[in-house]
Amino acid sequence: MTKSQDHVLAIDAMGGDAGPKAVVEGVAYAIQRGLKNKIIFFGDKAQLEPLIAAAPETRDAEIRHADNVVSMTDKPMHVLRRGRDTSMWAAVTAVSEGEVSAVVSGGNTGALMAVSRKQLGMIEGVDRPAVTALWPTPRGRSVVLDVGANVDADENQLVQFAIMGEAFFRALTEVERPTVGLLNVGAEDLKGHELIRTAARVLREADPDMSFHGFVEGNDISKGTVDVVVTDGFTGNVALKSAEGAARLLGEWIKQTLTGSLNAKLGALMMAPGLKKLKDRMDPGSNNGGVFLGINGIVVKSHGGADARGVASAVNMAASLANRPFRDEIISTVQAVMERRARLSDAKETTVKAAVV
Amino acid sequence: MTKSQDHVLAIDAMGGDAGPKAVVEGVAYAIQRGLKNKIIFFGDKAQLEPLIAAAPETRDAEIRHADNVVSMTDKPMHVLRRGRDTSMWAAVTAVSEGEVSAVVSGGNTGALMAVSRKQLGMIEGVDRPAVTALWPTPRGRSVVLDVGANVDADENQLVQFAIMGEAFFRALTEVERPTVGLLNVGAEDLKGHELIRTAARVLREADPDMSFHGFVEGNDISKGTVDVVVTDGFTGNVALKSAEGAARLLGEWIKQTLTGSLNAKLGALMMAPGLKKLKDRMDPGSNNGGVFLGINGIVVKSHGGADARGVASAVNMAASLANRPFRDEIISTVQAVMERRARLSDAKETTVKAAVV
Repeated sequence: MTKSQDHVLAIDAMGGDAGPKAVVEGVAYAIQRGLKNKIIFFGDKAQLEPLIAAAPETRDAEIRHADNVVSMTDKPMHVLRRGRDTSMWAAVTAVSEGEVSAVVSGGNTGALMAVSRKQLGMIEGVDRPAVTALWPTPRGRSVVLDVGANVDADENQLVQFAIMGEAFFRALTEVERPTVGLLNVGAEDLKGHELIRTAARVLREADPDMSFHGFVEGNDISKGTVDVVVTDGFTGNVALKSAEGAARLLGEWIKQTLTGSLNAKLGALMMAPGLKKLKDRMDPGSNNGGVFLGINGIVVKSHGGADARGVASAVNMAASLANRPFRDEIISTVQAVMERRARLSDAKETTVKAAVV
Repeated sequence: MTKSQDHVLAIDAMGGDAGPKAVVEGVAYAIQRGLKNKIIFFGDKAQLEPLIAAAPETRDAEIRHADNVVSMTDKPMHVLRRGRDTSMWAAVTAVSEGEVSAVVSGGNTGALMAVSRKQLGMIEGVDRPAVTALWPTPRGRSVVLDVGANVDADENQLVQFAIMGEAFFRALTEVERPTVGLLNVGAEDLKGHELIRTAARVLREADPDMSFHGFVEGNDISKGTVDVVVTDGFTGNVALKSAEGAARLLGEWIKQTLTGSLNAKLGALMMAPGLKKLKDRMDPGSNNGGVFLGINGIVVKSHGGADARGVASAVNMAASLANRPFRDEIISTVQAVMERRARLSDAKETTVKAAVV
């Protein structure tokens, strides 16, 4: 078995709105807190050298110079055609060439997805990629997928998302049997789309090893009812952004409450330790990092606006996935479930025919 | 023009988990704060009489006895077949008979929808009903629809939801030209389903009177980017419940912060007025009341768990809608837009044919 430090991580240092400074500081922050993997930064050498010199934790990191940068407004097709000299392209290509085990980028999501699909391809048996998001719960955090790679998903894709999400959660948390739920609506006479019901049936019948909970509703996500919440990219994106928007509005109201009067300000001082904890809990940075599951290689998308702590979360996520056999698990489970599914469908048809005869 | 007090409101007093007490107290609360409409309570006379005696504001209300109650677990089909002696049935029927202008019920949503469709039918030109939800924003509140009447919606239905939501918002707030947005996802290469794009085009071309903003994303809802957010019932239900879940988790964390230590408790005392305001803002009761738009009559669904203040919100909503000509507006706008849409499609086909020839 390879040791975790053998797994090298490629960091696209030029992605993100905050520029390479937040990226290098984020890697330094992760190393301070125990990250052991070797790091290769991809980007502009002239900008990176002084940043690395200023962050002694990163002194063992390597720099790979890239002349160019993918901008946040570049169209994915444009990057595919003309982006070979960018830091993003070089960092992803280091995965496809086997030089590194995972890549982290805070750049343009559409371009990162397009370059990853082109350079790494899909895992065998998986139709489409899904993007993950971490979601805070009273028990820690859950993972929701897909939050935006595709606007829809058929029943087979939902089943594949469930398998990939479960393997992802296990690799990230070392929880042996994460629970999985399919996002649905609850009202009596409209229990979801037909295809969600089919996906639930397939998961129950064809994946006996999965701890499949059944359907969950929107409010179950923040409750932590299950570890892995599966949905299509349209619904997942709307759920995530709606909840983020509500949390931001509440955060604004809390701020107004704490600064609304002199007394309130004094009161806020008295609860400073608790407020610090509340702020940490509400910090989106601690949940930063979305993985492109289904891509044949580990690609972690960091939020473009992430600060050093946020970048560190994404880098640690890449390390957790690189250090564990989660991709092999996805390949073998997807294959087994899809085969079992085919056999079950055949068996049903045979039974139906027998009944008709 | 009829005066607002001419519009009688039917109240299903037996709906809701909290029983008739919260309902009667809610009506009393609304009357205290200026509600002028005449009220008819439908329900068990023996239970209602002492409650009304205890709430002097309601002394002018009438009681219509009903022997039976729709339970929260009754199937809609069962209620349609055997529910004629229930308070819900009698209250809705009072609308169809023209005796009252609107009905409020905290009962079983599926049953209320089924009875309303059967007894009141649909507004001419509207294919399907949509359920509204009020959503707090920094500017006050927005309306989101559909939050659960249907699991999907085609482009014509989305257009109808937009027209109905706009008329509803105007009736509720007296804002003359509410802004309307279609809920979508933002990522570059996956701008939503085809049918959402078609709905946007129809709204732009065929409803020149509407202040149509275009697409909005999940986080725009809490920002108050538009007054009316239009989506299908599956997405709307997930968005609403996901945001409610996140708000509840944050509320729990705030509570822990305020009571985490003796100092924190003292600090909380010092900011008591601000915390009271925060609590009021976070109170779901103040946004209670979902309307079944598209039903040919005003039906307001109150939350089953609503307290007196929550019931009052739903009753005030029913009064606002009853007192204004919003149903006539929906009928004429839907008809005009659908006719214009047909003409525009014809014109396009003609142009295409001409181009081909």
